[in-house]
Amino acid sequence: MEIKVMKRVLDRNQDKAEQVRKLLKEQRVKMYNFISSPGAGKTTLLEKTCEYLKDKANIGIIEGDVSTDRDAQRLKMYGNPIVLINTDGGCHLDSNSIEKALSEFSLADLDMIFVENVGNLVCPSHFDLGETSKIAVVSTSEGDDKPIKYPMLFRDAEAVVLNKMDLMEHTNFNYNLFKKDLRSVNPEVPLFRVSCTKDEGLGPWLEWIEGKVKVEL
Amino acid sequence: MEIKVMKRVLDRNQDKAEQVRKLLKEQRVKMYNFISSPGAGKTTLLEKTCEYLKDKANIGIIEGDVSTDRDAQRLKMYGNPIVLINTDGGCHLDSNSIEKALSEFSLADLDMIFVENVGNLVCPSHFDLGETSKIAVVSTSEGDDKPIKYPMLFRDAEAVVLNKMDLMEHTNFNYNLFKKDLRSVNPEVPLFRVSCTKDEGLGPWLEWIEGKVKVEL
Repeated sequence: MEIKVMKRVLDRNQDKAEQVRKLLKEQRVKMYNFISSPGAGKTTLLEKTCEYLKDKANIGIIEGDVSTDRDAQRLKMYGNPIVLINTDGGCHLDSNSIEKALSEFSLADLDMIFVENVGNLVCPSHFDLGETSKIAVVSTSEGDDKPIKYPMLFRDAEAVVLNKMDLMEHTNFNYNLFKKDLRSVNPEVPLFRVSCTKDEGLGPWLEWIEGKVKVEL
Repeated sequence: MEIKVMKRVLDRNQDKAEQVRKLLKEQRVKMYNFISSPGAGKTTLLEKTCEYLKDKANIGIIEGDVSTDRDAQRLKMYGNPIVLINTDGGCHLDSNSIEKALSEFSLADLDMIFVENVGNLVCPSHFDLGETSKIAVVSTSEGDDKPIKYPMLFRDAEAVVLNKMDLMEHTNFNYNLFKKDLRSVNPEVPLFRVSCTKDEGLGPWLEWIEGKVKVEL
């Protein structure tokens, strides 16, 4: 029974996601769905990215959080329009809540929307939000085994950001092993090595995402 | 609809959890449900704990993993009976799979079972497995805001293990803030500060869990 129910939930989510995707295409807005474990650094990455894109593109933010507005408060100071979705204990965003959030923006004025999903490597990977693509964020302190242990996200991601490179030397994270495992689930995905809090290595990532502003959907 | 469905799933899980709890009580086996983000160090904590308890108690392990047997392979070398539950993409263990796993053990020979849940701070907190209690594992590199951002787990936990203390000095983790926030959701919970990979600070945790072997259910 539970599998049937889950399939129905996923089907309904998928239908709505296709509507969202159509709407975004009509409005020429790209939407990137940032997914990671709790504390991998999504918010800090978005802070750095919003700061960099400030005079280059018009960015909206949809902030998903289980029960607080802490991340939304952090991101607010960059001046982007921002909509907070509190999932009230829920483990992922869905396309229905995204559709509602989109109605709060003036889409004609935006180039891109960044969605910060709930901190969770599993459930957000199953739910299409109608996004242009998923960005996987992972940090060295989580260990090098994440692409193999949680392959769904890494298989689907259009880019992988490996954060907390500054901590790597203090851990037993094996970069070559990480990269080999990542390549086994997604051979071509761009991989960016950064330290968001130390503001190191962000250049290639920022140029990549800036390049996406101009891409036609 | 989805909320009703979720309620039905949770009710069924709860009924089964009560059966599991009754069975464990009859067999005088305690069961601890270890929950954390991906990569917070549950497996390494269990390795250290199994090693310490080797000649002191009979421990069984139930290993929950999304798609691999990597953690089970790591834990196997300590000689404990171990059952692997692959959730095949599922984001948490449930009481039904735990009941099946328990039938693989000779419960009369065990003092305790350690359950390593799927790496996820959200969903495992919603699903009672019939455990004696939950142990929350969190690491300094995830940031100090976890108790406030994911309060469900920290509210229910019987103990909190703060791992990767050795990394704290390299991050902006504020221990006093973490402790204050933790106390606001769970004023009395024991908090153990450890570094599992560096084998530091584990004494109080190991003594605490050893003490649980003798407690009557």
